[in-house]
Amino acid sequence: MPRVSEAHLAARREQIIDAATRCFLRNGFHQTSMQDVIKEAELSVGAFYRYFDSKAALIKAIAGEKIGVVQATADHLLRQDPPPPVLAVIDDLLRQIDINLTDDGTVRIAVQVWGEAVHDPEFSGLITEIYGRIRGNAVALARRAQESGQLPAGADPVAIGSALFGLIQGYILQRVLIGEVDRESYMSGIAALMGAGHEDRPRTVTTE
Amino acid sequence: MPRVSEAHLAARREQIIDAATRCFLRNGFHQTSMQDVIKEAELSVGAFYRYFDSKAALIKAIAGEKIGVVQATADHLLRQDPPPPVLAVIDDLLRQIDINLTDDGTVRIAVQVWGEAVHDPEFSGLITEIYGRIRGNAVALARRAQESGQLPAGADPVAIGSALFGLIQGYILQRVLIGEVDRESYMSGIAALMGAGHEDRPRTVTTE
Repeated sequence: MPRVSEAHLAARREQIIDAATRCFLRNGFHQTSMQDVIKEAELSVGAFYRYFDSKAALIKAIAGEKIGVVQATADHLLRQDPPPPVLAVIDDLLRQIDINLTDDGTVRIAVQVWGEAVHDPEFSGLITEIYGRIRGNAVALARRAQESGQLPAGADPVAIGSALFGLIQGYILQRVLIGEVDRESYMSGIAALMGAGHEDRPRTVTTE
Repeated sequence: MPRVSEAHLAARREQIIDAATRCFLRNGFHQTSMQDVIKEAELSVGAFYRYFDSKAALIKAIAGEKIGVVQATADHLLRQDPPPPVLAVIDDLLRQIDINLTDDGTVRIAVQVWGEAVHDPEFSGLITEIYGRIRGNAVALARRAQESGQLPAGADPVAIGSALFGLIQGYILQRVLIGEVDRESYMSGIAALMGAGHEDRPRTVTTE
């Protein structure tokens, strides 16, 4: 019965990913051993290694799930016609980060993986792969904002995507490491840089 | 002769900080032991521990030197009258990062320390202290840009400082981890977001 077997495999994978996430958040990525995760997942060593053979593989799986969420948000934003204001797009993405922080907190693992990727080729390869996908979305969003006249048509959408992405990364770092900043304050700072009025913050207008 | 003794102490400290920097960059912060640094510094264990008793203390010293450079850049920018354009300020700061990356590369250690600070209170305390100082400069620069009419006067300079700081952090991450982005491209993306160089930027329609 392949369907039962597949459901079983997926459930076990999920069980392990959840256990690994809890361990990484509790003790940090570096201080967590495979043994810790196996114990947390309450599986036998043999069963465990059929699913994941390294901490890098676990991180890849956790990241894969999260990228799915980011992708869904980006798809939703890209489908809107007319495209939402750039500020609304950024606000939506920061909201996702806030939800993650109060929900499972896996964005805290991301910051640890960034540190890891500085000197570990396996992790830097993973980061490059993930960021290629995320930045692709940032570029697509930039292009739509240009087409709708929100941003200068002559600018390079890849460059705009990088800057947008940088703002998001900076928010993650400040939220995870300093904690003082909140979404509304960060957004009002971005709005001021973009020259948008404070009081009369633009709302989405449907032109049909 | 206290003056000779002080010079001697400073030289030894410098010798150790340089050795630690080389070790952290070569093998990563976590994979470097105190023994590795002692060996690299070519000092006796007893002599070494008179200067630094932990990796955290070494990181604090390395960060302290770098903060001095950032502070000097900020002081220079803040002294200019009239204040330089916001884009020129950001460009100056990104230039410093580029110089660091091709020079001693210590900004790569910073990214590792961010990862460390997620679960280590000693490091998160250090980060909070350092960032308090850096953000103070960002806020001062924002305030000057507001006074000179470059940015909306009604906006909160702390919020603008956070967003500016976020852009810098995002650049550091992308440069260290992805490497594809360069300063000119990132700057042109920021310029596009800020509406620079766009003569007839469309007015946003607001509904009341």
